[in-house]
Amino acid sequence: MTKPEKIRVPAVALRGMVRGMFEKLGAAAEDATVVADVLVWANLRAVDSHGISRIPRYIELFASGEAKARPNIVVTHPKAAVIAVEADGAPGPVAMCRATREAIATAAKTGVAWAAVRGTVHTGAIGYYTSEIADAGMIGIGLVAGVPNMVYAGSKAAGVATSPIAIAVPSERHGTVMLDMATAVIALGKIAQFRQSGTPLAPGMALTAAGEPTTDPELAEIPLPLGGAKGSGLSLMIEFLTSVLVGNPIVAEFHSGTPHGQRHRQNGTVIAVDIGAFGTLAAFRSGIDAAVDAIKALPRAAGGGEIRYPGERGSRAFTERNRDGIPIAPGAWQKLCKEAEKLGVGAPALTSAG
Amino acid sequence: MTKPEKIRVPAVALRGMVRGMFEKLGAAAEDATVVADVLVWANLRAVDSHGISRIPRYIELFASGEAKARPNIVVTHPKAAVIAVEADGAPGPVAMCRATREAIATAAKTGVAWAAVRGTVHTGAIGYYTSEIADAGMIGIGLVAGVPNMVYAGSKAAGVATSPIAIAVPSERHGTVMLDMATAVIALGKIAQFRQSGTPLAPGMALTAAGEPTTDPELAEIPLPLGGAKGSGLSLMIEFLTSVLVGNPIVAEFHSGTPHGQRHRQNGTVIAVDIGAFGTLAAFRSGIDAAVDAIKALPRAAGGGEIRYPGERGSRAFTERNRDGIPIAPGAWQKLCKEAEKLGVGAPALTSAG
Repeated sequence: MTKPEKIRVPAVALRGMVRGMFEKLGAAAEDATVVADVLVWANLRAVDSHGISRIPRYIELFASGEAKARPNIVVTHPKAAVIAVEADGAPGPVAMCRATREAIATAAKTGVAWAAVRGTVHTGAIGYYTSEIADAGMIGIGLVAGVPNMVYAGSKAAGVATSPIAIAVPSERHGTVMLDMATAVIALGKIAQFRQSGTPLAPGMALTAAGEPTTDPELAEIPLPLGGAKGSGLSLMIEFLTSVLVGNPIVAEFHSGTPHGQRHRQNGTVIAVDIGAFGTLAAFRSGIDAAVDAIKALPRAAGGGEIRYPGERGSRAFTERNRDGIPIAPGAWQKLCKEAEKLGVGAPALTSAG
Repeated sequence: MTKPEKIRVPAVALRGMVRGMFEKLGAAAEDATVVADVLVWANLRAVDSHGISRIPRYIELFASGEAKARPNIVVTHPKAAVIAVEADGAPGPVAMCRATREAIATAAKTGVAWAAVRGTVHTGAIGYYTSEIADAGMIGIGLVAGVPNMVYAGSKAAGVATSPIAIAVPSERHGTVMLDMATAVIALGKIAQFRQSGTPLAPGMALTAAGEPTTDPELAEIPLPLGGAKGSGLSLMIEFLTSVLVGNPIVAEFHSGTPHGQRHRQNGTVIAVDIGAFGTLAAFRSGIDAAVDAIKALPRAAGGGEIRYPGERGSRAFTERNRDGIPIAPGAWQKLCKEAEKLGVGAPALTSAG
């Protein structure tokens, strides 16, 4: 079965449409811009599972009241180097970008800043926030805790979330070098792709809803943790550092079985470290290049391809998609345009397809 | 083949002997106490690969000049929340404990503190430092970067180190909950254990010195990264955050092939987060208990045993070994006593064996 050819939508046009949709959904112009930037950035980096495909979910969350288009975000600085962001159900990009801005400004003064975001929803591709920090000449670290959807080692149930961790640093010749990884062996979005193509999973990737090991993509429901106890332990720690720290526990509430415990919500952490406090930014950036060059020059594994630094693939996709447009399946594009139309937002006229 | 029964050495006696050895090696009394505490703590937690078995290596490092028994440690506070510790080749426990103390004191004022340790040697079990921070009512995070000994994904050579990450939090009923993990699928110490017992490794754990996959413990030399690109990416990021940040790169220097690049050295990072800046310590501690209880109550995997929280096994060993003594193989004990004797330190009289 050959798939219909994807259409290419210019990032700027896509951003405009998404911004328009969020404005119609009630968001302030500034917030709609932020959400559009974060979602389209994920598509540009080829993390399509975290891009515009999430828009219907945001619409649901606004409708159910789990998310607010006009949140009352309150930012406090309880101590010199820490920031508390009460997100009040703001879309993740809005709350996390606010935390990022505050973390950068604070770290410039104190050398390191820890910003805790309490009570947001779907934060998107968290590499966005850490790469903003790297662009400011700092080290960026991001963590997100969410509702359990991954096996905890030793159990056969979704005990913890696939909580991601992202770390970004600036370099001179390799742009932003960035790790953005979930604590699961396979992302839920990847399982969906296997389902669509009818390809079986490798063993040890996921369990069925009943907790049985499976390679059948139709039955695979719960991803297994990265490296067993290490991956689920790391995820649990992210819950502690991110949710329990701000008094908005997700894991314990979820398993308590209350209706509140089942609601979609996330907490996030954004950390910025001022490189200039320890040395010069120029030396750091060329130090990153030297390490990356050394890694890329290692002898390759038999049958292996190019050795990549963290984020290299996404960074190449970013360049390519910014130039050629974002590839979207015709069906998905039609669906998005229909959603936009319902909100009274026109779809961009596309001059070329390819 | 039945192994000879291990002897049990009381922690206090072992600590006294190790302290005596480091004093004879030239360390100040205070520093010798710290090293003995950190090494014996690892044995108490059943992380025997990071305990007293490392003493011969420290002796080598002192002899080669890679480590200094009387380092001139310089601590500066370049900005309010960051600390730079110039370790001057101090034994890891001495430099890391100093960073830990500074991080706790600083975080109490600023809410978070980031202490960077530059140029130390073998840091031991880094859970020690993070658990000290947890004991102070804070979140502790520790990272260590060292000389490459683990495969970088896609290559067949040791490209990066098995760099560990530790995270510790205080709870009310479960003591310190602590993740302390390397970024490799298997520790070098574990490979040595397989070698001793003649047990083959599972596939996908290690390569030979020539870079070929093997399950033969005699040939296994280079551990593979946890989860492929994720594990080696995380290790590379630890090098960036820990070594490149302080201008003491290890990965790039190692691969440059210079004699300096091959020297044993490590850099470390210690982070403390003041829980009280975000809420009450009591609420945090009971929040950790609630999450741990929820995890332990999850349905067990078929054929699986108890579900454990991070650090549970080590915490039980700690209680048991503090009560019954630290089990040491007779051969290893004789070797250690001989080393002690050479330094003019008497071995403790052991009243019972079991």
